[in-house]
Amino acid sequence: MEFNTNSKVLEKLLSKVYQAVPSRTPMAALENFLFEFEDGKLTVTATDLEIFLRSSMSIDSNENKRFTVPAKLLFEIVKALGDTTIYFTTEENSKLKIRTDNGVYEVGFTSADDYPVVPTINKDKFVTLNGKIIKKGIEQTKFAISKDAVRPAMIGTLLEFHPEGINFVATDGHRLVKYSQLFENLPINEQYILPLKAGEVLPKLLYETDVKIFLSDSNLTFQIGEIEFITRLIAQRYPDYKVVIMVENEKLLKIKLPEFQAAVRRITLFSSINYRQIKLIVTKDKIEISSEDIDHGASGKEVIPCDFTEEEMILGFNTDFLNDIISNLSCEEIVIKISSPTKAVLIEPVKQNENEDILMLLMPVRINS
Amino acid sequence: MEFNTNSKVLEKLLSKVYQAVPSRTPMAALENFLFEFEDGKLTVTATDLEIFLRSSMSIDSNENKRFTVPAKLLFEIVKALGDTTIYFTTEENSKLKIRTDNGVYEVGFTSADDYPVVPTINKDKFVTLNGKIIKKGIEQTKFAISKDAVRPAMIGTLLEFHPEGINFVATDGHRLVKYSQLFENLPINEQYILPLKAGEVLPKLLYETDVKIFLSDSNLTFQIGEIEFITRLIAQRYPDYKVVIMVENEKLLKIKLPEFQAAVRRITLFSSINYRQIKLIVTKDKIEISSEDIDHGASGKEVIPCDFTEEEMILGFNTDFLNDIISNLSCEEIVIKISSPTKAVLIEPVKQNENEDILMLLMPVRINS
Repeated sequence: MEFNTNSKVLEKLLSKVYQAVPSRTPMAALENFLFEFEDGKLTVTATDLEIFLRSSMSIDSNENKRFTVPAKLLFEIVKALGDTTIYFTTEENSKLKIRTDNGVYEVGFTSADDYPVVPTINKDKFVTLNGKIIKKGIEQTKFAISKDAVRPAMIGTLLEFHPEGINFVATDGHRLVKYSQLFENLPINEQYILPLKAGEVLPKLLYETDVKIFLSDSNLTFQIGEIEFITRLIAQRYPDYKVVIMVENEKLLKIKLPEFQAAVRRITLFSSINYRQIKLIVTKDKIEISSEDIDHGASGKEVIPCDFTEEEMILGFNTDFLNDIISNLSCEEIVIKISSPTKAVLIEPVKQNENEDILMLLMPVRINS
Repeated sequence: MEFNTNSKVLEKLLSKVYQAVPSRTPMAALENFLFEFEDGKLTVTATDLEIFLRSSMSIDSNENKRFTVPAKLLFEIVKALGDTTIYFTTEENSKLKIRTDNGVYEVGFTSADDYPVVPTINKDKFVTLNGKIIKKGIEQTKFAISKDAVRPAMIGTLLEFHPEGINFVATDGHRLVKYSQLFENLPINEQYILPLKAGEVLPKLLYETDVKIFLSDSNLTFQIGEIEFITRLIAQRYPDYKVVIMVENEKLLKIKLPEFQAAVRRITLFSSINYRQIKLIVTKDKIEISSEDIDHGASGKEVIPCDFTEEEMILGFNTDFLNDIISNLSCEEIVIKISSPTKAVLIEPVKQNENEDILMLLMPVRINS
């Protein structure tokens, strides 16, 4: 068969789909793109078996044909060609001939039979969301995803659809983040766990346009313009995080966030590599933030203003966890809701953005003294 | 003792000197800065024993004192402080106390006795060159530096001062590059081999201002404004490269460089990972550039115009070496001077920049066919 296309149009399509090609795989077929020609349309697919990415473009051929081609080589050739017309011909000897004004190239193509079967999408059940919301939800929560293989459910992002909106939740047991977008009348009430890889690739494809999400028990499919992003789901029960955040933390500590971020970042430099501890001595109107590395004889101490409902309290945190949390917040002022120095604290912006609700939870540590 | 300084002034000084601190070293003393106070001047030194970097600033103290402080920690603190005044105090318990409006920090300081002795600089013998020339010479030649420990002389850049100018030479035996800046009346005629690490750090410190180079048998010292960059030299004989480039290659092949670069880059995609070969079939007015990866059934071929003094010749090159050479040239047109398909070719710009002379040499490979 013969077909031709503009190199830039094909490059744009391949650059999206290529993100599903695994960089290392024992399964040679996954190093290929699946090319499917049907009724004047070319659909290109790539997968690492966890996510599938597909996209289509119109072409000037009515032949129906399926084959696979080396993904990296083809993508790099197309990128290197500049802006030109590419003429493709499939030859008898399993060669795909590529011609441009610059030269003639050949790559081998192989049977599509060895390529994984693309999951069938049930298009009956879906919700429509703005791409920006999904992108923000995934990016806002990913720092807290667990790396612990013992609890596979937590190595992913919880997507929770409910009648008032959508929640994105991630936790590793030491800290938890819940990001909510609120909008009424979402017709479903269901939980899905998005695996890590999906959370890495999906935000790169999303922009401010509506996305249809097709829901099934084993897969979610995101229809983003011409692109179909299919991901397997983690088939586990997510821990009941609501119990954890339903705490009555009535001691309220308000701090200007930018000041707190800068001080914590500096004091972190003095924490010991082994203990990674930061100490907050909180009084009614100021916090002394300190850390110490006894082995290297280094220590640091800063005092910043605050507004605390109690007289005094000493809190200890892991520096990395505290830095992660406060650097993933952006607002003028935060409130830390405290029960006692040994119980989880809740951290929230004093003023939430419209239709948004963000909540962080962090377990304190016992300070060595 | 007490002294104070603006954080940004100190940060600028430390950021230069820090480049000599080794990222990993078994010798703990090298992880420190050496601080030397003398007659109202603070001199900071760092070294990995191969290069020494020093710089000075005036300070408001007339005490004379020497000690060492943890380089990474101090540099990171100073960077994190923003623009402020820093007050330093050396305490009795070997602590350096650091105070700012934000807080109080302490780092341990240690005796300067364990710190390496900084080489004495003989200031009698020197040349003065523009920093831009040294920077360009090092950067233009570094791609060809050998990685082969068997011939230590070649794991460095040859600096050759002679009455008509300066040559920078690097070679790994397969290719050679010689970059010359011409200016009359340089009073010396000597060779020095700059080690790899010096070639990596030095260009970062150079800009368009005059640099004094103090010459001795064991060290070169580059005085760059307030900064002193001292490097040990490779105490070996550099191979007699002039014999290699004194060849009579009378067959001349002229090619437009940008076109050649683009074609070679594309065809390289089709070369086998094992052989890395590219084939040029050169005739009077065109070159066919091709490569082939038999294992993966891929091949590519492009034809571009040229101007050759002979009828036909077939040349083979290692794709990486050829790409290195042509991507390190920037001109309209190059001339490849050829003797035979098995002998070294010389590659030069058809038109050299004023006061510059650049010459590349490349060994061909035998094409598998």
